[in-house]
Amino acid sequence: MALKVAGRGRIPPFIVMDVMRAANERMAAGHDVLHLEVGQPSTGAPTKVVAAAKRALESGDPLGYTLAFGLDALRERIAGYYRSAYGVSVSARNVMVTTGSSGAFLLSFLAAFGPGNRVGLACPGYPAYRNILTSLGVEPVLIPVGPASRFQPTVEVLRSLDGPPLDGLILASPSNPTGSMVGAVELAAIGDWCRDHDVRLVSDEIYHGLTYAGPAATAAGMDGAVVINSFSKYFSMTGWRLGWMVVPDDLLRSVECLGQNFFISPPTLSQHAAIAVFDCLDELDGNLARYARNRAILLDELPKAGFDRLAPADGAFYLYADVARWTDDSLGFCRRMLDETGVACTPGVDFDPIEGHHFLRFSFAGATNDMIEVGRRLKAWSK
Amino acid sequence: MALKVAGRGRIPPFIVMDVMRAANERMAAGHDVLHLEVGQPSTGAPTKVVAAAKRALESGDPLGYTLAFGLDALRERIAGYYRSAYGVSVSARNVMVTTGSSGAFLLSFLAAFGPGNRVGLACPGYPAYRNILTSLGVEPVLIPVGPASRFQPTVEVLRSLDGPPLDGLILASPSNPTGSMVGAVELAAIGDWCRDHDVRLVSDEIYHGLTYAGPAATAAGMDGAVVINSFSKYFSMTGWRLGWMVVPDDLLRSVECLGQNFFISPPTLSQHAAIAVFDCLDELDGNLARYARNRAILLDELPKAGFDRLAPADGAFYLYADVARWTDDSLGFCRRMLDETGVACTPGVDFDPIEGHHFLRFSFAGATNDMIEVGRRLKAWSK
Repeated sequence: MALKVAGRGRIPPFIVMDVMRAANERMAAGHDVLHLEVGQPSTGAPTKVVAAAKRALESGDPLGYTLAFGLDALRERIAGYYRSAYGVSVSARNVMVTTGSSGAFLLSFLAAFGPGNRVGLACPGYPAYRNILTSLGVEPVLIPVGPASRFQPTVEVLRSLDGPPLDGLILASPSNPTGSMVGAVELAAIGDWCRDHDVRLVSDEIYHGLTYAGPAATAAGMDGAVVINSFSKYFSMTGWRLGWMVVPDDLLRSVECLGQNFFISPPTLSQHAAIAVFDCLDELDGNLARYARNRAILLDELPKAGFDRLAPADGAFYLYADVARWTDDSLGFCRRMLDETGVACTPGVDFDPIEGHHFLRFSFAGATNDMIEVGRRLKAWSK
Repeated sequence: MALKVAGRGRIPPFIVMDVMRAANERMAAGHDVLHLEVGQPSTGAPTKVVAAAKRALESGDPLGYTLAFGLDALRERIAGYYRSAYGVSVSARNVMVTTGSSGAFLLSFLAAFGPGNRVGLACPGYPAYRNILTSLGVEPVLIPVGPASRFQPTVEVLRSLDGPPLDGLILASPSNPTGSMVGAVELAAIGDWCRDHDVRLVSDEIYHGLTYAGPAATAAGMDGAVVINSFSKYFSMTGWRLGWMVVPDDLLRSVECLGQNFFISPPTLSQHAAIAVFDCLDELDGNLARYARNRAILLDELPKAGFDRLAPADGAFYLYADVARWTDDSLGFCRRMLDETGVACTPGVDFDPIEGHHFLRFSFAGATNDMIEVGRRLKAWSK
């Protein structure tokens, strides 16, 4: 038999999965693990969200499909959040509820970019962007960024790109894995550059709300920009698989038809529950305060252990460390560190196929005591 | 500004949405509507599923991401279901839990078919197949089927296809919109033909369990076949957005990596709840008994109203009626029928761009009293 296996399925796995497997084996063998490899909150959904989910379960509503755009009541709450959190006016008709931000990436990429189009994105960056684009026949154009531009594209960087013009640009601020951010002035300048060069801006804002040096600026309201957000990070509803996007008018009909065909609708119970999350900002800001404490501990302790070249972690819950002084094999380094200290983290190769060989990502989404213990163990290890 | 809108986003919407909008307007204007346009159960999830969801909410589990393949406990229950329901041995490692059957279609199409590949599918059929394939650069090869082959492809039909060879074949039994089925002997013959011609068989089995003339045969266990199923139909967990597929070994790694990138994981609460659904078969068979009563009423009453050319509705919850005696504009006919009788149904053009102009789909997933009333009104209308 010679059935085909399509080439586009041969995308790289998340290398972190290998680390997670090793961490699980270590735990199964009776050793402890400090989980700094995990890219998700350790908290569950806020109390009122859980209560809303229970009410929906008890309501007798059969919880069938919703419209592809999602529940109108949730779209209205999201639109209202742009007014209250950013002072930006967004119409609920431009808000699409999606199956995680993952669903928003797929739908917006399909709607905006055709086969052979070229889409720029920062490297290091979230690997699923380039993998989804590649699978859809769109060419990801990796834009190397480093300390000089705070690990973010700038207009200057965009101007200096070689090759044919871009059709799109993905901007992630705060960024995964670095946590670095694009300020409001630079974001506006990038928006202008995109508009002037017919480049569709896709602004990944899934770590908004998790910021430590001033709030993040949104691209919502910029001409033609697609804004993508998630209930998984600040809103702490990870496994509920719910996100949203603010869709410019010219893509609305496309994403609706694509959404009907690719998803039918986002999860219904999650949608009912998420309506309540906008009444939980106090509880969510409590989580944020814990992240801030964790971040402060690691920023204090990691340099003492020799991890002293860190990207500017202005947001998200990651520290991205240049470990070139020790290794050019970040995966091997991660394995050894796990083996010898019980500290699990993510090798940079997941985010950057080239420079990532000498970077690690530490997540501080976990418990504060774990961060203290990580500092203790790594200082002892690197002595 | 001249931002691109990709051509592949310009796929047709579900026409039934227009009918649903008209139905909603009619209800808003104070008239009643009998909803036979709806492709989902009117029942919610079984009692024990709701209870399991509440327990998961109360457990303190943060309900974060699962592995891309889904929870092992659920994969084991699904594998066990193949033993108990079909007497077929399926390993849990070949079971992937997906975000609805929609997610399974996307992942299997990406993994199995490259740009330019040709995939056969019955026409009439579920429109999302051809729309997803087209968006991914795969060529859908519509195989016209009608009463002569019980609205299903046969080996004879496959042998007689013109054009370059197929790379894949999607088979849906029971079919949406017709409800017609492929028997075990014919399924085995089609499986053999696919194997002999290097054609990847994708067997859509999402209406299994909803059958009225003997159980449906599964392609699970056939060499190289992808089997797709759903918790949305027989299992009555529609808005929970959960399905699964049985993945052949040669596609396992691809669907895992694609799943990580395109979905991260299926909804976690839905997965915990779905483990309980296999203990609810009595309740689900109660739903099936209602569908059987509804089907019997419509099969009795619709012909009296002149809808006497019906596809063999051996499964699912649809009747597909040839209304060529009245119209060659099924959408206009649907609108008029809704307007004059309050009966909403789906125009065949959603399922078949050519012959669908003289077909309608009636769903009998609703209440039995509604079916009786539909018979009464349509008989009066067609007099």
